[in-house]
Amino acid sequence: MSNPDHTPFLEAAAALLGPRGFTADADLMAPWLTDWRGRFTGRAIAMASPASTADVSALMRLCAEHRVAVVPQGGNSGMSGGATPDTGGHGLLLSLRRMNQIRVLDAENRMVTAEAGVVLQTLHEAADAAGLRFALTLGGKGSATIGGLISTNAGGTQVLRHGTMRAMVLGLEAVMADGSVLDTLTPLKKDNRGFDLKQVLIGSEGTLGIVTAATLRLEPRIAGRAVLWAGLASLHDARALLLHAEAHAGAALEGFEVMPRHSLDAVCAYLPSARAPLAEPHAWHALIELVADNDADAATLQSRAEALLASAFEAGLIADATIAASEAQAEAFWSLRDSIAPAERALGPAVQHDISVPTHKMPDFVEQAVPLLEAAWPGTRAVGFGHLGDGNIHFHVLAPAGVDPATWQATDGKAISAQVHDLVTQWGGSISAEHGIGQLKRDELARLGDPVALAMLRQIKAALDPHGLLNPGKLI
Amino acid sequence: MSNPDHTPFLEAAAALLGPRGFTADADLMAPWLTDWRGRFTGRAIAMASPASTADVSALMRLCAEHRVAVVPQGGNSGMSGGATPDTGGHGLLLSLRRMNQIRVLDAENRMVTAEAGVVLQTLHEAADAAGLRFALTLGGKGSATIGGLISTNAGGTQVLRHGTMRAMVLGLEAVMADGSVLDTLTPLKKDNRGFDLKQVLIGSEGTLGIVTAATLRLEPRIAGRAVLWAGLASLHDARALLLHAEAHAGAALEGFEVMPRHSLDAVCAYLPSARAPLAEPHAWHALIELVADNDADAATLQSRAEALLASAFEAGLIADATIAASEAQAEAFWSLRDSIAPAERALGPAVQHDISVPTHKMPDFVEQAVPLLEAAWPGTRAVGFGHLGDGNIHFHVLAPAGVDPATWQATDGKAISAQVHDLVTQWGGSISAEHGIGQLKRDELARLGDPVALAMLRQIKAALDPHGLLNPGKLI
Repeated sequence: MSNPDHTPFLEAAAALLGPRGFTADADLMAPWLTDWRGRFTGRAIAMASPASTADVSALMRLCAEHRVAVVPQGGNSGMSGGATPDTGGHGLLLSLRRMNQIRVLDAENRMVTAEAGVVLQTLHEAADAAGLRFALTLGGKGSATIGGLISTNAGGTQVLRHGTMRAMVLGLEAVMADGSVLDTLTPLKKDNRGFDLKQVLIGSEGTLGIVTAATLRLEPRIAGRAVLWAGLASLHDARALLLHAEAHAGAALEGFEVMPRHSLDAVCAYLPSARAPLAEPHAWHALIELVADNDADAATLQSRAEALLASAFEAGLIADATIAASEAQAEAFWSLRDSIAPAERALGPAVQHDISVPTHKMPDFVEQAVPLLEAAWPGTRAVGFGHLGDGNIHFHVLAPAGVDPATWQATDGKAISAQVHDLVTQWGGSISAEHGIGQLKRDELARLGDPVALAMLRQIKAALDPHGLLNPGKLI
Repeated sequence: MSNPDHTPFLEAAAALLGPRGFTADADLMAPWLTDWRGRFTGRAIAMASPASTADVSALMRLCAEHRVAVVPQGGNSGMSGGATPDTGGHGLLLSLRRMNQIRVLDAENRMVTAEAGVVLQTLHEAADAAGLRFALTLGGKGSATIGGLISTNAGGTQVLRHGTMRAMVLGLEAVMADGSVLDTLTPLKKDNRGFDLKQVLIGSEGTLGIVTAATLRLEPRIAGRAVLWAGLASLHDARALLLHAEAHAGAALEGFEVMPRHSLDAVCAYLPSARAPLAEPHAWHALIELVADNDADAATLQSRAEALLASAFEAGLIADATIAASEAQAEAFWSLRDSIAPAERALGPAVQHDISVPTHKMPDFVEQAVPLLEAAWPGTRAVGFGHLGDGNIHFHVLAPAGVDPATWQATDGKAISAQVHDLVTQWGGSISAEHGIGQLKRDELARLGDPVALAMLRQIKAALDPHGLLNPGKLI
């Protein structure tokens, strides 16, 4: 039953959006009130699913009038609980999933205007059909939506070359706290009428406005790729190899991922089909992707990849290496990388951290943090892997054998996370590299964030959302 | 003489900064109270020249305490009067020119941390000495400072490949209105602790904070370049040639500038040494620069440039073309482009507009706007030239022969500018592509800006500078 205080609002919202766009049915709402990892469950007075920007705007005006808070949600596949309502139960869950139109795909000018609810995979397919590609991808592409990806400034494995979501957004449409619509969908490559307002909304996790559509940059479709696998003696060697590859391959270098032996072993144990690409074991492994955007470059890609490895051997940077001989083998290499997270999870309880440090400091950080954590918490095992080129480490600490998962997570696990966040802050890094703050890290951000930066975030939040109606309890 | 009301502040500021850092001497201040184009002259109670971030911070705390407004200034070579005080005379002119240290140049990681007062030319030289380059340049490089370039989000002729100043800034240090220091100088490639605060400061023209230093991205030093000159029948052909060059040359395409026959003729009349690169006259001309970042690419650059032109001929896109045979000839081609502004000025009084439209609409815009303006204002001549790849047109309207310059500027000139701004707004464009708003276009922005965007700019301004102390009277 809805809270009686909200009846006038609920009636008005139901009338505005009609039965397809509005429900207070507990069963229909239930799947969207818990985040996909099951860490947060909230409550809401109703779920609105408007199908147009005009409806989002009218709804937000209603919310402002009745002082009803709004929790915007896309695919509900965020990592930090940023799209799950709190347990207070006084807010409205605002699903953007019905806003799933690709409004324009302009192949000549390589841009697409997509609504917030378009699923990433759908966008990939639309771009591909036009002979182009959208150069951001991540594991949750089958559920993650454009609106959510923008609101969390999503990353992924192609950031090295193409940047995060921030770099993809040419224009934005968003509904602000008073229901007004900011429309910068028409992209201007140069526009100095004040600072760039869309940058304020990107990464603001729905706390400043509701992203309803965006104009996004498309890239040429890949004409060819070479996927390399290298065995390395240390993470410092991996860093040296990255610099070597950057100098050699320039813009062709699209991905550079690293994993320690522990992660590769875990994947091989977890995936029946997995095979280590190299015969001998190595302390570290690098997965490198070179791409060609046109046929001329594609024709020379294989020989350039071979030359890159040959010169790296000569320079003593790598112990062993191989180039995927087929597209199937290239996929198999990437599957090893993409399976680390589930493979590590299968080993038992762990606390996971999505952190970053200045790119060039990542080897020192991992080399120092791993033994430090393992010594401080006997029986644990610390593992860092991920996006070396971005300084972004997925840093997992596995529980000692035999602990009770829930108890360990709530006690030692929590203390370990605090220590990891302290460490990364001391190193000038970030406690959230690509997953956002949401509910999960809000207290940690308040504890460890730069007071000047936090003050600015809060001042801007208060200015743009004076009644605190947009995604309360998230980020700040 | 200083205003007696300000005596306690002036004494405290003088004591804080010492004689090198503080003056109220009218003669010493005079050169900095008029913008370089002589369009704006203001007054100030004194000029402060702090030499460190700590001093800027302490000074800003004093200003906050005494409610003294501050006008930050770099090289005083802005185009919109954004660094010139107003005529009220109650503000402090804050020169950043003594903050001219390059704090760190990290060649391996291709980044440099430079203070706000470092002159662009100095930064170019420092990068070059390290075998790298800073990939933004513009006519005023001998005076423009890093702080000013960031505060106005400067553009230039390499935006096509490298983006505007916004894309160069990896980290920022700024003093906020209360004297607190935002320090994001340590660059993190991925950092999702809320929205990106440095993006709020970039392009804010000193109205939200005082940029004191920045960490900037460096590029490999150019290993070779090919500079092409093409004669074209129309601006639509130029656009088709641009798309052709993008498909052909990809990341090697660094510049694509266009000019009409009128501009080339004006330059040839103005510069005694100038020679048109092609034998026959053409309605339009394109200047194209391809660059190579490494020796391997440099070795094939000439043949790639020739192949590009050959295929463009075949496709019927160009009427005639040539490739600079030497570095001296390449410089001569660029000198033609860089001399358009003074050459046009030498023809007589004109109103000039730094505008942009969506990139692909630029040919239609120029083709429609030129006859429209010339018909509406008999005797005038309208000329558009500039950065075709960025949709950024420098659109000049020359006065009819025989008018009194000052009178014409103040009457017809003003009306023409309003009409150009109306037009560009109807086309979804910007009344300031790269020069900023400053004092020059503040009223036009208020008249033509999107009310939702203006409200956001004002809300954020009020939140971060509640007493209106930072560069009052500029932008908004």
